[in-house]
Amino acid sequence: MTEIDRLEAVARLIRYYILTSTTTAGSGHPTSSLSAADLMTALLFGGIFRFDAEHAEHPNNDRMIFSKGHASPLFYALWTVAGRVTERELMTMRKFASPLEGHPTVSFPYTEAATGSLGQGLSIGVGMALNAKYIDNLPYNTFVLLGDSEMAEGSQWEAIQIATHYQLDNLIGIIDVNRLGQRGESMYGHDLDAYRRRISSFGWKTIVIDGHALDQIIAAYKKALRSKGKPVMIIAKTIKGKGFPFLEGKDGWHGKALTEQEYEKALREFGPVDTSLRVKLRKPSGKKPGGTIPVQPGAVAYPPDRAVATRRAYGNALVRIFSAFPDMVVLDAEVSNSTYSEIFRDRYPERFFEMFVAEQNMVGTALGLSRRGKIPFISSFAAFLTRAFDQIRMSQYSAPNLKICGSHAGVSIGEDGPSQMGLEDIALFRTLLDSVVLYPSDAVSTEKLVEAAAAHRGLVYIRTTRANTPILYAPDEAFLIGGSKVLRMGGNDRATVIAAGITLHEALAAYAELKDAGILIRVIDLYSVKPLDTETVMQAARDTALIITVEDHFSEGGIGEAVRSALNTIPVTVHSLAVRKTPKSGKPTELLDYEEISRESIVKRVRDLIKA
Amino acid sequence: MTEIDRLEAVARLIRYYILTSTTTAGSGHPTSSLSAADLMTALLFGGIFRFDAEHAEHPNNDRMIFSKGHASPLFYALWTVAGRVTERELMTMRKFASPLEGHPTVSFPYTEAATGSLGQGLSIGVGMALNAKYIDNLPYNTFVLLGDSEMAEGSQWEAIQIATHYQLDNLIGIIDVNRLGQRGESMYGHDLDAYRRRISSFGWKTIVIDGHALDQIIAAYKKALRSKGKPVMIIAKTIKGKGFPFLEGKDGWHGKALTEQEYEKALREFGPVDTSLRVKLRKPSGKKPGGTIPVQPGAVAYPPDRAVATRRAYGNALVRIFSAFPDMVVLDAEVSNSTYSEIFRDRYPERFFEMFVAEQNMVGTALGLSRRGKIPFISSFAAFLTRAFDQIRMSQYSAPNLKICGSHAGVSIGEDGPSQMGLEDIALFRTLLDSVVLYPSDAVSTEKLVEAAAAHRGLVYIRTTRANTPILYAPDEAFLIGGSKVLRMGGNDRATVIAAGITLHEALAAYAELKDAGILIRVIDLYSVKPLDTETVMQAARDTALIITVEDHFSEGGIGEAVRSALNTIPVTVHSLAVRKTPKSGKPTELLDYEEISRESIVKRVRDLIKA
Repeated sequence: MTEIDRLEAVARLIRYYILTSTTTAGSGHPTSSLSAADLMTALLFGGIFRFDAEHAEHPNNDRMIFSKGHASPLFYALWTVAGRVTERELMTMRKFASPLEGHPTVSFPYTEAATGSLGQGLSIGVGMALNAKYIDNLPYNTFVLLGDSEMAEGSQWEAIQIATHYQLDNLIGIIDVNRLGQRGESMYGHDLDAYRRRISSFGWKTIVIDGHALDQIIAAYKKALRSKGKPVMIIAKTIKGKGFPFLEGKDGWHGKALTEQEYEKALREFGPVDTSLRVKLRKPSGKKPGGTIPVQPGAVAYPPDRAVATRRAYGNALVRIFSAFPDMVVLDAEVSNSTYSEIFRDRYPERFFEMFVAEQNMVGTALGLSRRGKIPFISSFAAFLTRAFDQIRMSQYSAPNLKICGSHAGVSIGEDGPSQMGLEDIALFRTLLDSVVLYPSDAVSTEKLVEAAAAHRGLVYIRTTRANTPILYAPDEAFLIGGSKVLRMGGNDRATVIAAGITLHEALAAYAELKDAGILIRVIDLYSVKPLDTETVMQAARDTALIITVEDHFSEGGIGEAVRSALNTIPVTVHSLAVRKTPKSGKPTELLDYEEISRESIVKRVRDLIKA
Repeated sequence: MTEIDRLEAVARLIRYYILTSTTTAGSGHPTSSLSAADLMTALLFGGIFRFDAEHAEHPNNDRMIFSKGHASPLFYALWTVAGRVTERELMTMRKFASPLEGHPTVSFPYTEAATGSLGQGLSIGVGMALNAKYIDNLPYNTFVLLGDSEMAEGSQWEAIQIATHYQLDNLIGIIDVNRLGQRGESMYGHDLDAYRRRISSFGWKTIVIDGHALDQIIAAYKKALRSKGKPVMIIAKTIKGKGFPFLEGKDGWHGKALTEQEYEKALREFGPVDTSLRVKLRKPSGKKPGGTIPVQPGAVAYPPDRAVATRRAYGNALVRIFSAFPDMVVLDAEVSNSTYSEIFRDRYPERFFEMFVAEQNMVGTALGLSRRGKIPFISSFAAFLTRAFDQIRMSQYSAPNLKICGSHAGVSIGEDGPSQMGLEDIALFRTLLDSVVLYPSDAVSTEKLVEAAAAHRGLVYIRTTRANTPILYAPDEAFLIGGSKVLRMGGNDRATVIAAGITLHEALAAYAELKDAGILIRVIDLYSVKPLDTETVMQAARDTALIITVEDHFSEGGIGEAVRSALNTIPVTVHSLAVRKTPKSGKPTELLDYEEISRESIVKRVRDLIKA
């Protein structure tokens, strides 16, 4: 039996599993799995892929990402043949509580990252390949299976250009060009040269093959592994439904399992399958990354009398805490001189990666780094993070350890106008399961919260402000995720103003003005918007008759609604001052006034409410 | 004086205006404007661009989009020379309430669409070019000025591939390759061939020129206008800050106005400028699109005893109402057989545009169509619309008339798992200023709400459900934006359950079960989540002690928080049942139970609260 014969027998078994598991599930994507069956069989069982199957966590394992996540029946079939899933487990696919979900998630231990929203796997692969080449210095390779339809996603081209830029010759993409998308032919059909021309033009090595010829596939992988300085794309002509003539190349079979009858008929025609076949994966070398021992970070120090932008404190904090979190990596989307991540870049250039103006790929890359044990801090304008919200959304299903900083929050950025103003970022990041949303108001709290973010395992969003803001806190003040600060408080408070970031300073100014008029208010710094310090806010609601939230953010999904939800169980009205009119260009103070979130607006609202 | 001499004099004046307006404003992007000054001077005043300046609304005007919106000083200077802005108005740039904002918005009448988030202008141009070629059949051309740094955005490549697919030879892009991004050199620097290779490989005609040689520029435009079947990209080598030696090609000058002293010095060196120059634009031909007279749509008809998915009703509705809204255009991102926009495609193929798996470009294209008077309906899975949220966010600053349908909302989609579940879409769309968020529960209400969406001028989001759901309403029932339906109500209601979409059916089942146990509840169909029928919800809160919201959406920013905000002024606790655990694959009913948003969960919650 030749090597190819052996692989062919394995591929037959894989196809059998694909059909059996989807028909058992009553749904799924058998035809999209069948087209890539030979490509992935050859990768895993043709001696290319190196993976210590007993130790999925081995740092030098090769990485395999199914960007076309709907080919999950193939993915699980591969791990079945590799001996890591039993046939019985395989037949739980898509059933409630099975780790074998409809699209791969990290509840299955061999999933590198959850996929299923197309066009994201290559970016994740870029992160893993960057990690191998520049951080852990390990020889593992990263393989990404791509669908042809998903090449229409712009995020793919962001990943493609960055992979070239960083010369990721340890990254190998495989496009399964099966011609058919969900509702018919893809943009280029079987024109393989269309893919080759485009991808070559971006500086990749390309290899065009017949994706069902195992010898060609093996040869392509071997050639790919020899690439120096260039990422490699294997562009494979395949047939959707390959192996079962009545499915092959037929429209109308996307995302459709065979009925029992169709299944029986298909297998009769298919002939015998050796279900006892199990193949051991080739093991990686035992190489491990060198570790660095964490060292306590230095103290926070800002002269109390000099205003410092929180965005600048973000950059300072990254530098200060790096010794304590040696797994940190910092990425930015070509605005590091605005987000001030450049402060870190200048100090630790080897741990900074310029991601250019391509936010989607930045998030995907960061997720890949996170899945390889790093702590990525990524930054852009808060407004432009909306660009990557699908990637951010998907990351929540991959147990992410991501720290995302959005700068230039709100109308207070001034003259640049609404396109540059982050006004929906709190709402977006609040939706994410188990997310943390932090919004510091001065340099000290920013430093402390960046440190808290690094120490917290999970997805943390940090919102920073463009303008210089006065120092409010002593250098040794402690800030906790889920905490808040009561900055002004007395026995006769008539109202409580809850604010964060730029509006906290407006609230403090309003306090001073009202105090001069003999009206005392409580002022709370709600620096942790999620989780929210319900207890302190509750106490304020009990102590003072009135609650007013003030935020430089649209009214929906922001601080006002978060506080309303926190105070939902007690009878108190939460008055929300927020951005409600189309913002314009203008001076920050003009815009705060216009949107009625300035000190004057707070004073007026307090006075009106007290009178009422 | 030759034609070129004349243009050179105009370009000098443009440069003078760029410097003067930014120094007067004290901020802005002079250097990014200077690099493109010759390119745009030649376009507008070299006899290429045809525009009836007294009638910006003329349907056959050429279109000019500044995708690099930060070059707004150039944009406004052009319209000053064209006689549409006075010098005095120009000097209000970036000041509060001036229509000349930091990045172009539609408060300036010559702005085709607001830009400033990079990588969006070309998609908008695709929409305008599609409109000219396939809908209005007009000979106008669409010109898009692009920055080199923004070519890193994946959305650009989505637009590039679609423009080729639709053979948009009336679309001309101009890349201002000035080498420098915001924080240093762009990915390809001055390697013009890098751009040429990539863009050619996608099937565009490319023309590489010196972007400061007016004769080359004019020749390039003339050549571009002769293109047949292919969009054209002019790739121009330029120098950032061109015209002022101390700025030329220098780093550190991005987004920075000159001080008064620098300005004085610069102008001394620059020499005399003829500020009296004004140039009339060449007028377009008087062609106008043929109009179609609206015809009342047919009646809604669904047999009351057959379950129909709201997503299918969406497709049916598009076909039914087209005669009444002849400006409708339907776009889909390669999932028309899931969103059911294919029902429209099959009936009116000439008004359906396949956008493939590229959601960002789909939204940008739709905005372009909207700005040319069309009513675009676009659809994808709700989950995948997150991909285009920056484009959606930006569209709110362009007075959009967009109808966006997100299908496959919530965990109720079942086996496909979390990657395919729209669980944050209500939160996202609620943040948008003046947005409408509709969430129908049956086929009849879907039909009526799609019609209401078409009739409403603005951005409307329609959330549809995968599963077939029973018909709840008679065919003549009326549904209004801002309305709701009280479906169960009596004098002894112990609680009110507010739901929409799939959970409304759960609420009705819970009603029946509770009624059998002698417990009466009120049930409200909150089909208009924004604006929300505060009056009806208030009345329910006054009538019944308890309010429970149930939604197949994450708890933040969704129906629960919307209702809390609506009921904020009265002392009532809103109990929210929402998705709070990481969803899995499984049967829809299993998942509704798991997330505690099923009929059983509602019954249990009502019983618990009544006991309490």
